[in-house]
Amino acid sequence: MIYELYYWPGIQGRGEFVRLALEEGGAEYVDMALVPEEGGGGVSAMMRFLEGPDVARPPFAPPFLKAGRRVIGQTANILLFLGPRLGLAPRDASGKLWVHQLQLTLADFIVEIHDTHHPLGGGLYYEEQKPESKRRSKEFLANRLPKYLDYFERVIVRNPDGKRWLSGSALTYADLSLAQVVAGLRYAFPQSSADALRACPRVAVLHDAVFARPRIKRYAASARRLAFNNDDLFRRYPELGK
Amino acid sequence: MIYELYYWPGIQGRGEFVRLALEEGGAEYVDMALVPEEGGGGVSAMMRFLEGPDVARPPFAPPFLKAGRRVIGQTANILLFLGPRLGLAPRDASGKLWVHQLQLTLADFIVEIHDTHHPLGGGLYYEEQKPESKRRSKEFLANRLPKYLDYFERVIVRNPDGKRWLSGSALTYADLSLAQVVAGLRYAFPQSSADALRACPRVAVLHDAVFARPRIKRYAASARRLAFNNDDLFRRYPELGK
Repeated sequence: MIYELYYWPGIQGRGEFVRLALEEGGAEYVDMALVPEEGGGGVSAMMRFLEGPDVARPPFAPPFLKAGRRVIGQTANILLFLGPRLGLAPRDASGKLWVHQLQLTLADFIVEIHDTHHPLGGGLYYEEQKPESKRRSKEFLANRLPKYLDYFERVIVRNPDGKRWLSGSALTYADLSLAQVVAGLRYAFPQSSADALRACPRVAVLHDAVFARPRIKRYAASARRLAFNNDDLFRRYPELGK
Repeated sequence: MIYELYYWPGIQGRGEFVRLALEEGGAEYVDMALVPEEGGGGVSAMMRFLEGPDVARPPFAPPFLKAGRRVIGQTANILLFLGPRLGLAPRDASGKLWVHQLQLTLADFIVEIHDTHHPLGGGLYYEEQKPESKRRSKEFLANRLPKYLDYFERVIVRNPDGKRWLSGSALTYADLSLAQVVAGLRYAFPQSSADALRACPRVAVLHDAVFARPRIKRYAASARRLAFNNDDLFRRYPELGK
């Protein structure tokens, strides 16, 4: 099956968590954000699903994945679907649920990371909420960042199948997502991330192990992998923190 | 099986989405928040799972559900697990994924509702972020509230199995959660919710249908159902909006 991924062009965003799974899983897919408008891709293609009157199960927002006739929305839900198909989820029901739980915790973490530059909501520009962003970032860096990273460190340490991945002895989609979050945090808050990661060595090792995998390495070096930038989820505003 | 639900005492919070499913599904369960500390319940019981050094798969935060030896965290994940067991999810894989997608969209909605009174994060009291809460609430009521409600209205209208529930011809856990969100919104923002719901009549009817179901009705009238209050997810601060 050739999957179609729909997301905003120009940013990694939440789409990147799906891309990493598709790439590591060796899936055939079309990243519709990279297909020009005149070729039937881009924002217009995405909007047809979000706003078209004939979509039986419309997603609320991107990213969403077209898999045959199915249109699947919500990042964590897409990964729940793709995981077993791409060999990126445990085989047992219990393990599947645990990895999904970790993904949902990562999703919460990502919302809080996003809110450091948009505490008053996505309807206002960052420039319209700078003082609020500073207060929120201060609280985030002091408390939430170490709390989340410590949690994932603990999960790796308690993994009875080795202290390499979050769950089991083989990589799952949650490992890919955690590595991407670490990469994004290092872009957004280089010094604070380095400080927090010193206390979480296994999370740092997991990040390196993910980005050293042949398929991920090849992907990260390709033109398909966009650079982090300040229209994205992870943003580098030095005034918000080191 | 007797399930054990762990959550903060004194509030409905995210635990309520699980309680509604357990009640409607006729499950045997112990709400550990209602069990006194000296009887082995309350916050201490919850903390043992969150902070105990011997929990193999620790949840990041409550609510979590103990089902035999399993400890399952993340509200949407708990419902993904309970849905088929309690007859509150579609039987086909596609339907299960769709209902979960709707639940995750409700989860996003709930975060935004919570952030109307905590835009700068949960580490500060509401009283420390009042002006910011006013700005965020204004934006929420003007744009996000109608956008989410319109979305769920559209989903009901497009349901090919009747325009009663979000998916299929039988109630699912996502319907229970949507009804609870409507109830909470009416508590928090009575006038704005009434205005928004006038444009979404099927969402309003769904709410009434859920709270008219015998088991939910009995539960809502019992002492187990806590009242909405201002330590909770949905809060009534008239200064934030009507």
